[in-house]
Amino acid sequence: MLSTTSNKVSFADLWADLGDLIDVDRGETIYHPGTPSNSVYIVESGRVKLAYLDESGKKLTLTIVDAGEIFGEMCLVGEKHRRHLATAIEETVLRCVEKKVFMKLIGEDPATLQQLVQHFAARMREFEETLEDLAFRDIQARLSRQLLKLSDEYGVETKEGILIGLSVTHKELADMIGSARENTTLALNRFAREGILDKSRYRIVIKNEAGLRKKCHAT
Amino acid sequence: MLSTTSNKVSFADLWADLGDLIDVDRGETIYHPGTPSNSVYIVESGRVKLAYLDESGKKLTLTIVDAGEIFGEMCLVGEKHRRHLATAIEETVLRCVEKKVFMKLIGEDPATLQQLVQHFAARMREFEETLEDLAFRDIQARLSRQLLKLSDEYGVETKEGILIGLSVTHKELADMIGSARENTTLALNRFAREGILDKSRYRIVIKNEAGLRKKCHAT
Repeated sequence: MLSTTSNKVSFADLWADLGDLIDVDRGETIYHPGTPSNSVYIVESGRVKLAYLDESGKKLTLTIVDAGEIFGEMCLVGEKHRRHLATAIEETVLRCVEKKVFMKLIGEDPATLQQLVQHFAARMREFEETLEDLAFRDIQARLSRQLLKLSDEYGVETKEGILIGLSVTHKELADMIGSARENTTLALNRFAREGILDKSRYRIVIKNEAGLRKKCHAT
Repeated sequence: MLSTTSNKVSFADLWADLGDLIDVDRGETIYHPGTPSNSVYIVESGRVKLAYLDESGKKLTLTIVDAGEIFGEMCLVGEKHRRHLATAIEETVLRCVEKKVFMKLIGEDPATLQQLVQHFAARMREFEETLEDLAFRDIQARLSRQLLKLSDEYGVETKEGILIGLSVTHKELADMIGSARENTTLALNRFAREGILDKSRYRIVIKNEAGLRKKCHAT
């Protein structure tokens, strides 16, 4: 019944007739810390990045939300104001479902409630893995784990190797691993020198996956 | 319906007649990474610490589970083997409920399923806060935030100040904030020199809460 350990729980089959559709441009903010928290969003198409900002403006990417997944769900468990920055990283279409409508839905349909359990469990597990990375791993290990994760989720086989089919800047990669941009670029350059990957500003191709896997365990 | 943002979701009123009671001594291991994952535990009395161990044996405390709360719930969402170390930090009585019994319960009782959603959401939020600490805050800030958290949950007013009513070693505090024992002791010594707290091996009294709060924002 509650049967998946995947980090991606899809709500795509639900409430096709509920809520309003919203078009969001790449780079556009959906909400920021302090915005009143009263709707759940489902990603119909595109991708959304959730990030935490500290007082000084430093950023930590918490997760990337793909098509079919939900975000903004903390309003269902009492959150009054958003704690994160939600930004579209591609042209995105969202379905925005009011909190009270969503609450009615899960009250009437245990299957949706079960999906919500899976969603929270998967997100919790994802945060936990990031925690372990930050506590125990150096930048090279964190970067290689992040690149393998992106390759699992967005990898495309090409002649040169596995192209990461999500365009990310070095700064965005740095935010994903809780590191400074400069150190992330240094580690990427090192991986490139060692023939593990090819990179340009937005494009990364993994040429030696086994080599990258070895870097995960170096500390 | 799903109405709490507290980090503590109580399952105390549930299944008083389900499962088996187990007595666990202080310091005893309940499960470790690799143990088959097929039961949910409720803490009837006492306290349990969940920690993550890395390959080299370094430890990060993820949470402390109090009376009324559950742990080991990842078996409900597909976990086959435990990923954590669960240790009693006091004399503890647990109720151990088999996965299939728990699954039957949530299938029949939406209220339990709703509690499970709250539980996962609260745990997720807790992990997220630890993530922010590790990514953005130095040891003094992390330590002061952790001490305030312990004081909120376990604080006892005394003549000298707020006694943290949970006996923790410097090593245990270090594991809670993802730091080395030596650096944690240095920070505690500094707080003691500044008159913010009094400490002995297992006992911490907060003498100047406002001073400790200021340390949370120093980086």
